[in-house]
Amino acid sequence: MTEYCAPLADMQFLLRERIDLEAIARLPGYEDVSLDLAQSVLEQSGRFASEVLSPLNRTGDVEGSRWQQGQVLTPNGFRQAYTRFIADGWNAMACPSQWGGQNQPRVLAALVEEMWHGANTAFALCPMLTRSAIDAIAHSGSPRLQHTYLPKLVSGEWTGTMNLTEPQAGSDLAAIRTRAVPAADGSYRLEGQKIFITYGEHDLSDNIIHLVLARTPDAPEGVKGISLFVVPKVRVGDDGLVGARNDVHCVSIEHKLGIHASPTCVMAFGHNGGAVGELVGEENRGLEYMFVMMNAARFAVGVQGIGIAERAYQRALAFARERIQGAEPGTRRRERVAIIRHPDVRRMLLLMKSQTEAMRALSIAVAAAVDLASGHADASERARHQAFAELMTPVTKGWCTETAVKIASLGIQIHGGMGFVEETGAAQHLRDARITPIYEGTTGIQANDLIGRKFARDGGHAVALVLEQMRTLARALAESSELRGAATVFSTAVEALASAIRYAIIHYANDIRAASAGAVPLLRLFGIVAGGAELLHSASLARKRLDATNPGAAETAFYVAKIATARFYVDHVLSQAQGLAHVVTAGAAAALDEGVF
Amino acid sequence: MTEYCAPLADMQFLLRERIDLEAIARLPGYEDVSLDLAQSVLEQSGRFASEVLSPLNRTGDVEGSRWQQGQVLTPNGFRQAYTRFIADGWNAMACPSQWGGQNQPRVLAALVEEMWHGANTAFALCPMLTRSAIDAIAHSGSPRLQHTYLPKLVSGEWTGTMNLTEPQAGSDLAAIRTRAVPAADGSYRLEGQKIFITYGEHDLSDNIIHLVLARTPDAPEGVKGISLFVVPKVRVGDDGLVGARNDVHCVSIEHKLGIHASPTCVMAFGHNGGAVGELVGEENRGLEYMFVMMNAARFAVGVQGIGIAERAYQRALAFARERIQGAEPGTRRRERVAIIRHPDVRRMLLLMKSQTEAMRALSIAVAAAVDLASGHADASERARHQAFAELMTPVTKGWCTETAVKIASLGIQIHGGMGFVEETGAAQHLRDARITPIYEGTTGIQANDLIGRKFARDGGHAVALVLEQMRTLARALAESSELRGAATVFSTAVEALASAIRYAIIHYANDIRAASAGAVPLLRLFGIVAGGAELLHSASLARKRLDATNPGAAETAFYVAKIATARFYVDHVLSQAQGLAHVVTAGAAAALDEGVF
Repeated sequence: MTEYCAPLADMQFLLRERIDLEAIARLPGYEDVSLDLAQSVLEQSGRFASEVLSPLNRTGDVEGSRWQQGQVLTPNGFRQAYTRFIADGWNAMACPSQWGGQNQPRVLAALVEEMWHGANTAFALCPMLTRSAIDAIAHSGSPRLQHTYLPKLVSGEWTGTMNLTEPQAGSDLAAIRTRAVPAADGSYRLEGQKIFITYGEHDLSDNIIHLVLARTPDAPEGVKGISLFVVPKVRVGDDGLVGARNDVHCVSIEHKLGIHASPTCVMAFGHNGGAVGELVGEENRGLEYMFVMMNAARFAVGVQGIGIAERAYQRALAFARERIQGAEPGTRRRERVAIIRHPDVRRMLLLMKSQTEAMRALSIAVAAAVDLASGHADASERARHQAFAELMTPVTKGWCTETAVKIASLGIQIHGGMGFVEETGAAQHLRDARITPIYEGTTGIQANDLIGRKFARDGGHAVALVLEQMRTLARALAESSELRGAATVFSTAVEALASAIRYAIIHYANDIRAASAGAVPLLRLFGIVAGGAELLHSASLARKRLDATNPGAAETAFYVAKIATARFYVDHVLSQAQGLAHVVTAGAAAALDEGVF
Repeated sequence: MTEYCAPLADMQFLLRERIDLEAIARLPGYEDVSLDLAQSVLEQSGRFASEVLSPLNRTGDVEGSRWQQGQVLTPNGFRQAYTRFIADGWNAMACPSQWGGQNQPRVLAALVEEMWHGANTAFALCPMLTRSAIDAIAHSGSPRLQHTYLPKLVSGEWTGTMNLTEPQAGSDLAAIRTRAVPAADGSYRLEGQKIFITYGEHDLSDNIIHLVLARTPDAPEGVKGISLFVVPKVRVGDDGLVGARNDVHCVSIEHKLGIHASPTCVMAFGHNGGAVGELVGEENRGLEYMFVMMNAARFAVGVQGIGIAERAYQRALAFARERIQGAEPGTRRRERVAIIRHPDVRRMLLLMKSQTEAMRALSIAVAAAVDLASGHADASERARHQAFAELMTPVTKGWCTETAVKIASLGIQIHGGMGFVEETGAAQHLRDARITPIYEGTTGIQANDLIGRKFARDGGHAVALVLEQMRTLARALAESSELRGAATVFSTAVEALASAIRYAIIHYANDIRAASAGAVPLLRLFGIVAGGAELLHSASLARKRLDATNPGAAETAFYVAKIATARFYVDHVLSQAQGLAHVVTAGAAAALDEGVF
């Protein structure tokens, strides 16, 4: 079986042509950033993904993580791979240099993280969760917490988890019941049960640092009474030395559809007197601190979807090139051909390829905005990039993950009967992808965030700006003889999106149920159009390169394919925009009809 | 966990209001058919499905069938359930009375079979395959073959299989290599390997009758050199007594994404001198005989999709009514509500419900046509119904199975994180459903059948008639104040379908690759519009009942829900028709672009 192969050409194209990497290199702390360095990092991470992580993907799926009396054993090879992963510095890549990180920009980290997820998504979840814990402590933790935990979380010597969900509190975090009682020494004692805790217990590291949402005794009801705590598996003294085992234990792991190698833990806090926890920031502000890192975590899950989609595409493409079946239609030749010659197989492959490239381009645009928002010299530029990143995060998360599921399913279809056989590997991608539209906030939650917080945050200014940029792009494309037809479809799609957004903004204010009923179709529509804008932008950049320079054969093939891929996307994906806008603007009454159930 | 519950109200509605059951009762052999009898059969089969098959669905999935030295052990309870299934006469239900069957019409059998698949699709595959074997022998076998095999296949004492696929011959049956050499006694000796043989070996019955495609020594190349053979697991003498074990063996079973309880076998023919087979009909006409029963088998897989979709819907609906999470948006009430009160959950539930009901209504319309095609007194009526059934079979198979996968995936989404946990049961439906768009001809194969054979078979007359009936329905709906808005969307969808069909017919003749590139989107479009026509027809029948009679509370609720469900489908599903037509009519060039891979 061929291993995952990082899509370096497309990634380098985005860094070289789409992103203003020089602007990012001008930001404080990013002085070392350069295209050369980035290419070298991508090549190295691509090699690590192919050689170390990819070979463990199927074996990890078959073996799974196993629970044994409170311990969790990860599949064979995972521990060695993790040791190499942190030794090679990958865990620290995008972390602050203050704590030992390499402080690489988000644009580069997003591409590298896509590789981890493409090669072995169950493995990649562990460092992904560690990064969330780092973000939370770095943003909101006391200097003591930072000094105690960040160096080892950044190096990867310790890993991190997020403990939010409880049996009665999934999407609804207001329902959290885990209690945290203050102790005399300023720490807290936590009691309660958390579920769905990714890598809540494992054998990859010596300590696990749990970030836990809980309520103090006199906390107000609801979301305003939730605090955030650090609860280490093994307690850590002020001297940084590791002390006693804390009262937090993994009591079981779930049997899941996919990501079998990633242990999804039920965690019991305080079965023996209470787990010792330290407050992050102030009491009752836990959700607020969570939201600081939530955008990053949600973006990361979107990238996970892209990684799995890319892997599913690579596998289907390799199969379609090898599998001989049937004569080519429309020719007189009788010999059998590889199924990639069959029009419907091409159509499916192109759905996979074009949507994956659209998602990648969109995610990198968002990542660049995150970089520029954090360090740009001009405050108004920072604000503009921040608004764009916040607006597009739920779109990236929701659209990339929902689309990843469809792409993985197409991958099975291209394999025919072989796709249903687990040994082939195509089925694992569907099983693994299927969680991505659920965790870190379901697509419904993302869509509500989009039409509520994100549209409203600046009076609709950010979303209006995005639409305006799309219209500008449409006008520019209309000047190109090659892309004029595509520009027409794109322009229609943009106006469909605009009408759906208008509907959502108006109704969110005075008929929130009507707006909510169309929120997910609107998010999908937004993703489709924003991804289309990115692909068409890429196509116009490719055309410029073809016209202006004298590219070599490989480059020429890449640019030609980029244009063809964008055109396919326009007619096969972007063309669905009006139908989706109809769902948003005309579908609420029927969805809310009380007589139907 | 709640068990499968047959959707009796909707099934009875279709038999009572949609289907002219009296016309079917006038057909020869169907004299006993009546609405009362049908209702009683549905109630009994519903009970069997809930009480006997449904409880084995998850246990069968977890345990799976196991291969042990050539034997296959089905999961605990399957053998007892099968024994009751045949003792109660369910296997013989739709079989010819000449061979001990009950000769029930297709409309009733389709509903009953939907129940088996809804309750336990891995179990239901065994009788489904037996029916295909019965069809093949009844249509094309010699009197000796019929007398030897049909009584015991009809009773279910023996089961049947279809042996088509070989490693190099999947969708491309022309590539079959299994050899059949004539012996002195008029029988044949078969040698070769078949893969993906559903219930090729098991412990449910004492004998297994394999229908096998193979080539005789001097057969012509390609599809015109394939013959059909009966190869029993245990040989049967002229006296009907069971003799020696035949040289056909199960050498392994597949590890699959789903339908774990259904053994998918690799069958070796002739490892010890050749498996004794008997020719069905004449040499080299095997594919032709296969095609006789292919339509029925493909229709049956479509029904399987409907059954799984219904089960996924029931599970999601039950969960959405129980699961408490979050306050209801748009109200001042702060208490948490069942998630069915959340607009996006309603939208997902209604996507599941409306598409499932649309698929069921379409499948029953096709089943009625099969009944009328086989027995109507008027030859032109027979021909008309036959043409409709043949035209709509690939649509039913392709659309109902692709949609079932999407519905099962929505079922997971409604469950949130719980949906990803296997114990919940929602994930199994996705895993089980995922094979249905692949076997008995992938959706690509169905779509090629549709735009090739089925559109062309009568110069496009059958498809033109369907479009005309849709336009008539649209005009009638426009008269209704309640459905006028829906009629507008429907009418637009019908014309979008018409334009896509026109494109496919024209291009099939002179640019087959362009037609093929859009064949699957066209099939989907056809399914969506045909299903919409059925739902809108049902809604208008429901309105008539509400206006004309004084129905009781339960009936009123059913009719009101039927109208609301149709309206939802119009705005959320039918509204996608124009986008799909664009894919068909404008998407071929990009899909066929040579520069893209």
